[in-house]
Amino acid sequence: MNGNEMKVGLLGLGCVGCGVIRALSRNQEEIERRAGRRLNIVAACARDLNKERDCDLDGIQLTQDPQQVVDHPEVDVVIELMGGIDPARELILRAIDQGRPVITANKHLIALHGSEIFAHAEQKGVNIAFEAAVAGSIPIIKNIRESLSGNRIEWIAGIINGTGNYILTAMEEEGRPFAEILAEAQRLGYAEADPTFDVDGTDAAHKLTILASIAFGIPLSYDHVHVEGISDITSENIADARSLGYRIKHLGIAKRAGEGIELRVHPTLIPRSRLVANVAGVMNAVVVKSDAAGAHLYYGAGAGGDPTASAVIADLVDVVRTLTTDAENRVPHLAYQPHALSDIPILPIGQVTTACYLRLQAIDRPGVLAAVTDILGGLGISIEAIRQREPDIQGADGSVPVILLTHEVPEDRMDQALSRIEELDDIVAPVQRIRIELLK
Amino acid sequence: MNGNEMKVGLLGLGCVGCGVIRALSRNQEEIERRAGRRLNIVAACARDLNKERDCDLDGIQLTQDPQQVVDHPEVDVVIELMGGIDPARELILRAIDQGRPVITANKHLIALHGSEIFAHAEQKGVNIAFEAAVAGSIPIIKNIRESLSGNRIEWIAGIINGTGNYILTAMEEEGRPFAEILAEAQRLGYAEADPTFDVDGTDAAHKLTILASIAFGIPLSYDHVHVEGISDITSENIADARSLGYRIKHLGIAKRAGEGIELRVHPTLIPRSRLVANVAGVMNAVVVKSDAAGAHLYYGAGAGGDPTASAVIADLVDVVRTLTTDAENRVPHLAYQPHALSDIPILPIGQVTTACYLRLQAIDRPGVLAAVTDILGGLGISIEAIRQREPDIQGADGSVPVILLTHEVPEDRMDQALSRIEELDDIVAPVQRIRIELLK
Repeated sequence: MNGNEMKVGLLGLGCVGCGVIRALSRNQEEIERRAGRRLNIVAACARDLNKERDCDLDGIQLTQDPQQVVDHPEVDVVIELMGGIDPARELILRAIDQGRPVITANKHLIALHGSEIFAHAEQKGVNIAFEAAVAGSIPIIKNIRESLSGNRIEWIAGIINGTGNYILTAMEEEGRPFAEILAEAQRLGYAEADPTFDVDGTDAAHKLTILASIAFGIPLSYDHVHVEGISDITSENIADARSLGYRIKHLGIAKRAGEGIELRVHPTLIPRSRLVANVAGVMNAVVVKSDAAGAHLYYGAGAGGDPTASAVIADLVDVVRTLTTDAENRVPHLAYQPHALSDIPILPIGQVTTACYLRLQAIDRPGVLAAVTDILGGLGISIEAIRQREPDIQGADGSVPVILLTHEVPEDRMDQALSRIEELDDIVAPVQRIRIELLK
Repeated sequence: MNGNEMKVGLLGLGCVGCGVIRALSRNQEEIERRAGRRLNIVAACARDLNKERDCDLDGIQLTQDPQQVVDHPEVDVVIELMGGIDPARELILRAIDQGRPVITANKHLIALHGSEIFAHAEQKGVNIAFEAAVAGSIPIIKNIRESLSGNRIEWIAGIINGTGNYILTAMEEEGRPFAEILAEAQRLGYAEADPTFDVDGTDAAHKLTILASIAFGIPLSYDHVHVEGISDITSENIADARSLGYRIKHLGIAKRAGEGIELRVHPTLIPRSRLVANVAGVMNAVVVKSDAAGAHLYYGAGAGGDPTASAVIADLVDVVRTLTTDAENRVPHLAYQPHALSDIPILPIGQVTTACYLRLQAIDRPGVLAAVTDILGGLGISIEAIRQREPDIQGADGSVPVILLTHEVPEDRMDQALSRIEELDDIVAPVQRIRIELLK
C-alpha cells in the first residue's frame, strides 16, 4: 500500500467501470471516512479511448493495453471489468503473480475458471473478490459466505437475471408474447443486442454455480447445472399460473436433496403470496433457507453501472482491510477452506423431485382425461388440480387446453408419463411442463 | 487463541444462548470447514442453573457468577446474551480490559452506552460485534457497514420489531382490535409478558439508533429519536389504509433531509405494492436506499433463539478472523472511523416533512368540509384525496368519519392545522394523524 492511499488499476471502462469512477469520486469523503484511506484509480484501459464516456477520466493514466495496467508500478489492486474469458483470465493470473489482489465482476470467468484462479491466488496469498459477479448490487456473496457461517444452508432460489425477470413481468402485466417484449426490451436497453445468455439461462447458470459453491462448500460445477430458458413460456402459461394463484419466475435453484445437490435454472411456478413472487421488472432477489436463520430474502438491482459499482467498491474496501491479514485468516474464496470442499454429487435432472404444472392440448372427447389420469396414476403421480379450459378457446382441430397440477414427482418418472401421454391419439401437441416450487 | 480452537465464554442461557449452543454443536463440522477452526463454548453462566433447558450443556463449565466467565483463564472471546444495562455493561467493559473481544445481542445497551463501550474497546484494540442487536438473523449491520461502503446512504426504513408487525398483520387479516390481538400474542408467546418496549416503539428506537449511526456516521443518538407506538391504531385506520391502497406498518425511519437527519419510529402508511408492505407476521425487513446501489431490501426472522444465534455465530467467526488483524484495519464499530463521525444535527420532529393520513370525526352538516379544507389551504397544505364515509357508520352524535390524505407538509405546520381543525364545533373528536411514506 502507498501510505494512506490505495492505488487502483481498472481494466475496462464500460458502464460498470464508469460507475466505479463516478462513485469513487462522488463519495470520496464518505468512503475515506469509512475505510480510513483514500482509494484512487491511477490507471485504466479500454479498447477505444476516444469513445464518449459518462465519467471523468482526469488524472487517470489511460492505455489500450491491459497489461500496462496490471504491471503498472504504482497499482496496489486490480479491478477487472472487461468480461469474457480471454484475456481476463490471463490478466487476473498475471496480477496474482505480482501479488496484487483482484476484484472482478466476471461471473462467466469465475463460474468456469474460478477453481484455477482461486488455487493460484491461495498459493500466492492473494485475495480475489467477486461480489459483483452475482446479482449486481446485492451483497449475496458476503451474506452467504460470512453472515450465514453458523448455518447449514438448505436451499437457495434466486431471480438472478434482470432481463429475464423484466420480460416475464412485462408478459404478465401487458399480456403480450415473449418475442414482442424481448424486442421492446432491446429497444429500451434493458436487454443486450445479443440477449442469448440472459434468455437461455446461461447467465443465471453462471451465477448459480458460484452461489451453490459458497453455500454448500462444493467445487464450482457449471457443467452440472440443468439449464432451461424462458423463450418457450407463453402468455397462456402466465395466465394459467395467475388463475391458479401462482406467478412464473425464472429461478436459479440450488438445493440439498437426499444424497446430493440439485442445481437447476428454469421457469418456475411459485405462489403469488411469496415475497419473491412480487419481485418485478429488472430487479433481482435471492432467497436463502438455512437451518438456524430460516428464510432470508435479499433484494436489489442486479445489474447496471451504478449498482454493480456499489458491489465492486465494497470489495475494494474489504480487500484493503485484509491486506495486512494472514491469508489463512481471510474469508476463503469459496466460503469453505480449500481443503474442506465436499464431493457430494450434483444430482442429474432425472433425479430431481418437484411438483409440476402440465398444459395439454386435447381433443374434447369423452375418455381423454381418464386416459391421462390413468397414465399418471399408474406411475404413482398424484394430481393436485385439473382445469379444463372453456370450449370458447377451442382450437381449429377441436382441441382444448387442459391444465394439470401434480404433487411432487421425480423428473424421470414424469418424463415417462409425458411420453405416454403424448402418444395418446387425442393429445394433439407436446405437453408443456413447468416445475412448481413452494419455497417453504 | 488456543491453537486451532477458539474458546468461548457465554453470558446468559436463555433462548438465544441455547440457540447458540445448539447451532455450534449441530453445525460444528460446517462451521469448522468455513472458519478453519473449532469454536467451543467452555464456560457459561445463568441465574438459575437448574432450569430445564433446550440445549446440551455437557462439557460446559457452569456458574451463576458472570464474572467467572469473563475472567475464565481459557476464554478467548465473550458472548453477552443477558440483556439489559446492568450488569451487562460492566461485564463487557471488564472483558475489554482483559483484551477479550465481545459479541453482544444487546440493542438496549449498545443504543444507550455504545459510545462508551466502543471508545474503550478502540483504546484497547478489542473488537465488539453486535450484528444480533438489530433485526435478529438479518445481517443488516454487516450489509450497511461493509456492503454499502461505496455509497452515500439516503434513507433506511425498517420493520424492526416482530411483535408489532405480528399485531398489525393480525389486525388487518382478522379485523380484530389491537388489545385482543396483543392478548392473544402474549398467550401464544409472540409477545413478552411485558410487551411495553415492543408496543410503544422503544425496542425499535434502540435498533434504529444503531442503524442510523452506522448508515450516516453519526454518534449513537437514542435521545433524539421521535418515538410513537402502535397502541392507538384502530381497525378503522387499517381498513381506511387498505381501501386507499396502503398498509400500516410500524417503521423505524432514518433519513437525510435538508440540513439534518430524521430519526423516527411510528406507524406509517405505505403503498401496498411495495415489497416491504408485504412483510407479514413476526418477520422483519429493512429497506436501505443509497446513491449507487439504489434500494435494497433485507428480509428475515427478527427474533427467536435459532435466528438470533445465526447472527451471533457469524459475529464469532468474523471476530476470530480479525484476531490477527491490526485493529486499525478492522471495520470500525460504527462503520466510520471514530475520529470521522459527523455532527450533522438530528431534526426535531416539527421539522420533519411527510404526507399524512387524517381521520376526522365530523358532524355531517354542510360547510364542515369547507371549513377543514380552508384551514389546510390557508396553511399551504394541499389535499391528495378526501373520502367521507357512508352515513351508515354515522355515530350516535350524528358524526361521520372523514378521511383526508395530504401531500407532504412539515410536521409543525400540520400541528397548527390540526389544532385549528379540532377547535371547529363540528369536529367532535381529536383528529387521528398517521404519516405516509412512499419509500421511493
